[in-house]
Amino acid sequence: MTLALPIGSTIGIIGGGQLGRMLSVAASRLGFRCHIFEPGATPPAGQVADQVTTAAYDDEAALRAFCQSVDIITYEFENIPTAALDLLQDLAPIHPGREALRVSQDRLTEKTFLQDLGLQTAPFADITDATSLETALDEIGTPSILKTRRFGYDGKGQARIMSRDDAALALADMQGAPALLEGFVNFSHEVSVIAARSLDGAVAAFDPGENVHNDGILRTTTVPARLTASQRTDAVLLAAKIANALNYVGVMGVELFVTSSGLIVNEIAPRVHNSGHWTQNGCSVDQFEQHIRAITGWPLGDGQRYADVVMENLIGDDMNRVPELANTPDCALHLYGKAEVKPGRKMGHVNHIKRG
Amino acid sequence: MTLALPIGSTIGIIGGGQLGRMLSVAASRLGFRCHIFEPGATPPAGQVADQVTTAAYDDEAALRAFCQSVDIITYEFENIPTAALDLLQDLAPIHPGREALRVSQDRLTEKTFLQDLGLQTAPFADITDATSLETALDEIGTPSILKTRRFGYDGKGQARIMSRDDAALALADMQGAPALLEGFVNFSHEVSVIAARSLDGAVAAFDPGENVHNDGILRTTTVPARLTASQRTDAVLLAAKIANALNYVGVMGVELFVTSSGLIVNEIAPRVHNSGHWTQNGCSVDQFEQHIRAITGWPLGDGQRYADVVMENLIGDDMNRVPELANTPDCALHLYGKAEVKPGRKMGHVNHIKRG
Repeated sequence: MTLALPIGSTIGIIGGGQLGRMLSVAASRLGFRCHIFEPGATPPAGQVADQVTTAAYDDEAALRAFCQSVDIITYEFENIPTAALDLLQDLAPIHPGREALRVSQDRLTEKTFLQDLGLQTAPFADITDATSLETALDEIGTPSILKTRRFGYDGKGQARIMSRDDAALALADMQGAPALLEGFVNFSHEVSVIAARSLDGAVAAFDPGENVHNDGILRTTTVPARLTASQRTDAVLLAAKIANALNYVGVMGVELFVTSSGLIVNEIAPRVHNSGHWTQNGCSVDQFEQHIRAITGWPLGDGQRYADVVMENLIGDDMNRVPELANTPDCALHLYGKAEVKPGRKMGHVNHIKRG
Repeated sequence: MTLALPIGSTIGIIGGGQLGRMLSVAASRLGFRCHIFEPGATPPAGQVADQVTTAAYDDEAALRAFCQSVDIITYEFENIPTAALDLLQDLAPIHPGREALRVSQDRLTEKTFLQDLGLQTAPFADITDATSLETALDEIGTPSILKTRRFGYDGKGQARIMSRDDAALALADMQGAPALLEGFVNFSHEVSVIAARSLDGAVAAFDPGENVHNDGILRTTTVPARLTASQRTDAVLLAAKIANALNYVGVMGVELFVTSSGLIVNEIAPRVHNSGHWTQNGCSVDQFEQHIRAITGWPLGDGQRYADVVMENLIGDDMNRVPELANTPDCALHLYGKAEVKPGRKMGHVNHIKRG
């Protein structure tokens, strides 16, 4: 047996936030070096990476130099400008590939893709103007939610429509961006599956986690999630179906609503995912190492869960709790090295571990 | 409760090998940045550190610049030249402190210190020349082992004396360096205790591990070690006694021989220790994070062991086994990013995990 990408190779990571930071640390465990490409100065990932390029995504010379220094490219977020991707993909292999980005960058494309796969989604409609919004509201009803098709995260770019009176204001909130109306889903709770697919098509999934959001931001992920055995199987098979359909390589996150009529796919993220951070203290191989293994052509690792974990995000002033958390047993801290505490900013997370 | 060294502070690490590498990763989890000072080019630790200085230990300007960029200093190996330490300690706090280095840098000082504490060591004698070696052999007998007082590691600087005929050759091997004759200890096995002492004097120890060496190099550490409950208590108390006597701050390794007449201290290492690598996959807080917590004035972390682990060093051509190990369940790889495989060189380690 050999390994596809030799030990000592350099992995380029686009984006220098906490996901890039934890990917770089995981890559180091397998003997890889990482080179971070990030427009923002002093990125968190740069503190634990071999090289850092600070440049804009439209800086062609910087992108070219970056490619020359790396053997493969991956990314920590899905909103990389298309022109940058066009340039990069000619110079180095990129995993996950363009199809995964194309689908996940646009909520309309994503929902259509999922429906075409035979999976359940919230009811949705393409919104281009007030008229199409009126028509969509006739069909989908209220309450519903208007979302920009692109560039939304952590609840940004979203407006609730509780009654038709809210429609005009919600549309104005989109600031002219292409949008999507989604019907509300009556779900009992949300879970997510962190799945990995390797270069040779093998698929592995971590145990699904149960997510609690607040103001559109993930607060906690708990494993095990409240799921029946058949729901658990469905969740994993569904994630595998998505990964296979995209010919996906790497780790992906699939958010699911649990309803009385089955699992409904909320969204997919073509990258390591906040709801998979529990794997750092619940598995021999965590989601970050699993991603590195997948994109480098290594065999997927052993992601069996060996502990119950509650992953709690540390957001903004939650950082004031760090001294107390540092003194709590069975509690693993993961801070992101961000200089400034801001409301709503993810500063770190803590895994509360309960062993059997 | 507050933390002594604020999150975001920079820790200077002297030495850029695998121990510095894993210290830097652990520090990042607590939000600290690391600056590596290392004479050798492209140090393994530099791949996962915020800053790297490549300079010799007698480069005063580089040492001063290093100190100005860091808030505290620690080290990954104990043989830092005295002149460098004299310069550094005036500019930034160094943990563990000078007393620990003074004692552990010299086998004669170390053995004397341990005896003065009432602990058992192998019989030993100071060797300055052929005459003192003859006298010592009269007293200690053969087989025995001649060791340089300073700068020995991984079996280097040692010569066995199986009979008096070997004495002259063994002494010549020392190349005129101050030496120590040690009597052989009739032990059943070797264990080590990884202990931590915080700035406020709290002491914690990981479960002792059982070590197997080959050609003077550690091959495996197994937890739990074969120890009776009282031996286990003795081992931990003894390590705590040493740490307290040195007013120690940080993690230390204490190697012990298990004999029918009790535990005999082989040597102490004022740093994280190869025999503590199992903690990365057996504890919520590993020895590297424990060291960072101790030197930064954070509370010591939860080092309870939650799994049985066999840590196996990957030395030289053992790297050929990585593809197979990557495909083995319950097996966590930790590679060091060293460019060149050499016989006897520690290239990584693997933790084989067995859960209850």
